[in-house]
Order: sequence, then structure tokens, then C-alpha cells
Amino acid sequence: MISTVFFDLDDTLHNTTRLARLARNAAVHAMIDQGLPLTPEGGCKKLVEIVRRKGSNYPGHFDLLVEETIGEKNYRLIAAGIIGYHNTKFANMHPYSDTVSTLIELKKMGMEVNIISNGRSLKQWEKILRLGLESFFTHVLISETVGYSKPDRKMFETALSIAHCDASDAVFVDDRVEYISGARECGMHTICMDKHRREPHDAPCDFIVHSLSEIPPLIRVL
Amino acid sequence: MISTVFFDLDDTLHNTTRLARLARNAAVHAMIDQGLPLTPEGGCKKLVEIVRRKGSNYPGHFDLLVEETIGEKNYRLIAAGIIGYHNTKFANMHPYSDTVSTLIELKKMGMEVNIISNGRSLKQWEKILRLGLESFFTHVLISETVGYSKPDRKMFETALSIAHCDASDAVFVDDRVEYISGARECGMHTICMDKHRREPHDAPCDFIVHSLSEIPPLIRVL
Repeated sequence: MISTVFFDLDDTLHNTTRLARLARNAAVHAMIDQGLPLTPEGGCKKLVEIVRRKGSNYPGHFDLLVEETIGEKNYRLIAAGIIGYHNTKFANMHPYSDTVSTLIELKKMGMEVNIISNGRSLKQWEKILRLGLESFFTHVLISETVGYSKPDRKMFETALSIAHCDASDAVFVDDRVEYISGARECGMHTICMDKHRREPHDAPCDFIVHSLSEIPPLIRVL
Repeated sequence: MISTVFFDLDDTLHNTTRLARLARNAAVHAMIDQGLPLTPEGGCKKLVEIVRRKGSNYPGHFDLLVEETIGEKNYRLIAAGIIGYHNTKFANMHPYSDTVSTLIELKKMGMEVNIISNGRSLKQWEKILRLGLESFFTHVLISETVGYSKPDRKMFETALSIAHCDASDAVFVDDRVEYISGARECGMHTICMDKHRREPHDAPCDFIVHSLSEIPPLIRVL
């Protein structure tokens, strides 16, 4: 009988991708307002390219955007970018409309709810707290702290061990089907939260849902 | 004839000290709300001690507060502190009530207005932009970028050189009388902005004012 649901965080419980796009856009506009000689479209394209090249956790995206555009460091422009980014991110960070009601429903069903997320511990915890979701979760496993990343099955074995849960009693929910393989290898039930209907019907997971609210009825019949 | 006024930033144009106290207080309360086993008074005292010990630009004040209190890293608590700190700081950051009117008055008098500040370039620029003061200043000199710090007279010589200004045509305004010596050595006119009336009447500066609005009339008669 299912006792525990493990959720991914980003793009599963809230819309990180949209948030990052909004925040990057605001950052580029703020930098242009302070004198960065780029168009909004050109600036956003260049910033996305830098994020891709350096990875999302690199701390100097705006520094590079400025240096590669005007050939030198300019703290006024960099600071404008950071302010635009953070103001927009924090003002627009909220769970999906059905996240909280789904978590409440699972708690009512007696489920333990946990997080399995790849990323930096401080950054992920900051999101959980800003989303106001922290009280739902018994365990929050973040790859930086755990030492393994999804889809490595060791990440899921660690999660099951910490939650004292047999794989057959556990469900793992992620928006990225490629992260689900390790959970399947361990014998967990798997759900792909495919909000944008991008996955094929035969994607390698047990179920595909298009919104979180489909999950509690699905778990009831497992 | 006076052509240029150089202002310090922190505690001269806005109340940094009060802001830091508010933000630290909010951070400690947020961490206690998430489980940090301290009283608000004890937590604030401990945090102030850590800031003193490690310096205000050390990036891990909250990490240390958590580790020294519970004996281990806890990202939930650290993230709560950071959110409380930043939300409070950004919500309460504004210039003194007479900062903007004083800067406008000086501009109307034909003065060039510049900043000479000790600190980290990005952090100081972020404050200037969040305060909405950036358009007033022709030159912003921050110690990290310049390579010298107040009260080193080289900081003031650099400022005069960048502004193409003779020392006798320049006024330097700072809330800390100990930063003024280098400006005096260069031959600049000096004003101590002693908002809290802490300085003795014979403090080593040309003038003591108790609010920024006293500065334009003073400069008119120089």
C-alpha cells in the first residue's frame, strides 16, 4: 500500500522555467535602462546563451553579459540586472494553483510527502520556503547534500532509506521523464507530471498526468 | 568657488545602520520560526557578534549562526534567515527624507555631485540603484574598484583627479569624522554629517551639520 509520495520540486510543484524567463527578461530590461547597449531580444538571447554555456548555478551571468557586450566590468549595470532579476523572481514565485490542494489531499489520505530535487541546497530550500510549502514535507533531499543526483538510483535508494519506506510503497513524481529511470530501477511507482503534454504515451514511466490534481485519485487505486 | 560635492553613501545619504539592525532582527525571527533554538534577543546578540568577528562582507553569517547554535549546517534555517534579511532590507531601503531635496538643490546650484564610499562595488551600486539615486551622480568611487579606502588620501586624490577638480573647489561630506582626515590633507573642504549629534564641537572637520539640508546654504557662503 502506498505510504509515501516523493516529489520533484522545479517545474513539478511550481513553474521554475517560466519564472526564470520572466526574471531574466526583467534583468535585461533593467540593464538596458541603465545603459547596456543591447535590444531586449538581443540581450535575452545572449543571456540565455551564457546561462547554457556556464550552467544555471554559475554566479556571474550578468557580469559576463556586461563584459562580453561593452568589453569591461560595470557594476552599475550588473547591480541593475541583479535587482531586476530578484525583484521579479520573488514577486512571481508561487506554487501551481493545484499544488497546495493536492498536497493537502495526500496528507488527508495519510501519505508522507517528501522532496527529491537536483540542485544546490540553499537555493532549493529558499524556493521551498518562499513557496510556503515547507510544512508539508517530512524529508527534503537535495542532490548537493545527498551526494547523488537524479537519475542515479543511489539518490532514490537514499531517499527510501531515510523515509524508511519500501520501494513498492513509494511513488515518485517528476516533470522530467529522464529522471524517472532510477526510481523505476529501484521498484518505485513512477508518475510523469507532463503539464505541457510533451511526452509520448509510451514514455518510460507508470503513469502520465497533466496536472497534480490527477495524482491523489491515481494513488487511491494503486 | 565650489564646483563639486563628494558624498559618502552609508549613513550619510541613507540609514544603513538602522536598516542592518532591522534586517538582522527579521532574519533571526525567521530562523527561530523555522526552528532555531534561540530567543530573539540571544539570536540577535549572537549574530551581531558573528558580524563583528567575521566582518560585514563575510558571506556566511547565517551559516555560522546555525552551526554554532545547533552544531551542524541546516539549509532550511539558513535560507529562512536570508529571506527574512533580504525582504526586510529591500522593503525598508530608502534615502533620508532630505537626501533627494538636498541633491536637487545642489544640482540647481550647478554643483557636480559624486560618491566616495568604502565597500564592495556591486553591493554599493545595488544600494545606489535601490535608493533610486543613480541619476544624481557623475562619478561613483568605491574602494574595491579604486584600490584605496577612506581615510587614505590617495582615495581623495583619485576622486579629485577623476572629477578634474581642484581640492579647494571640492567639498567632502561623511558621517564618520575619522574618514575626513584624508580629504583635509588634500585640501578639500570637509563637512561631518552628524545626524545623531555624537561629535564634539571641535571635531577635526571644517563644519558639522545635523541634517543634509544644512549643506546647500553652507556651500553658498564658501
